[in-house]
Amino acid sequence: MKGLIHIYTGDGKGKTTAAIGLAIRARGQNLRVGYIYFHKEPERWGYAEHGILTKLGVDIFGFAKKHPHFHKDITADEIRHECLEGLGVIKGLYRENKYDLLILDEINISLRDGFLKEDEVLDILEAKPENLELVLTGRGASQKIIEKADLVSDIQAIKHPYDVGIQRRKGIEY
Amino acid sequence: MKGLIHIYTGDGKGKTTAAIGLAIRARGQNLRVGYIYFHKEPERWGYAEHGILTKLGVDIFGFAKKHPHFHKDITADEIRHECLEGLGVIKGLYRENKYDLLILDEINISLRDGFLKEDEVLDILEAKPENLELVLTGRGASQKIIEKADLVSDIQAIKHPYDVGIQRRKGIEY
Repeated sequence: MKGLIHIYTGDGKGKTTAAIGLAIRARGQNLRVGYIYFHKEPERWGYAEHGILTKLGVDIFGFAKKHPHFHKDITADEIRHECLEGLGVIKGLYRENKYDLLILDEINISLRDGFLKEDEVLDILEAKPENLELVLTGRGASQKIIEKADLVSDIQAIKHPYDVGIQRRKGIEY
Repeated sequence: MKGLIHIYTGDGKGKTTAAIGLAIRARGQNLRVGYIYFHKEPERWGYAEHGILTKLGVDIFGFAKKHPHFHKDITADEIRHECLEGLGVIKGLYRENKYDLLILDEINISLRDGFLKEDEVLDILEAKPENLELVLTGRGASQKIIEKADLVSDIQAIKHPYDVGIQRRKGIEY
């Protein structure tokens, strides 16, 4: 089965959760699933989905976890290096043919915020093993990334509770 | 914690998977989760996510499973009766205060296709217990339903593989 490239982008809620739902569906068919996240700090937020995914046999990797918003001492250069390390790991996983579905959660943000260059991310799309289903999430997917993808969902926030001052809630946002 | 009403609508891929991802996140925080689907026929498609959700302690209920597209002998009236039975079950679950998160997958379709009336679905939103987080999915959410919701994500299909003739794939679409 030829694997496609999915992108879940836009300002609305549902990008990461859609990727997690795909992971669950794929595990239900015994597909091999890897989940790589960028710019998220489980040590801070304790993303509850990670524990369940691990139990279900999904391998989880995190890169560039410390966001400058919360860690004033971290430099853009350090974050870039960690993102590049992530790309290296992805290429290693490609060579091992380790997964049927690989999720790159928030990698669009790495590009949008300048930690990765467009060519570097395009290279990850182009180097994808033919049978691998690859999923990218995060706001602000670039036009060239969208052109390379087979499936693009733009999740628009018609209403978002953050807009009316409702804070992140345990079990719903993390 | 006050529970919100979420809607995931639009033509793009990611509505049901976003709801499943939310279910996983909520279970990761030990919230009690119920999942009710309309107009889906697992006997036909074997939705792989259902087995995993059940193992994770999510209760699953299905109504109006037989779609007229595949079952020419079923009448609109029969489907309406099954949808109404679903609403009855939802109200029973409300009274029991059984869940922290309740997903009504594809209920927007019940309304869009005329099997349920707008007032009947609005009544389900209005009768929601205060602490329950309620999630509705499906294309074509009506304006009044959107007005009652706290969080609305409109998932637009910028690219969809069905458009280029790629069929439903095991582990990805079901």
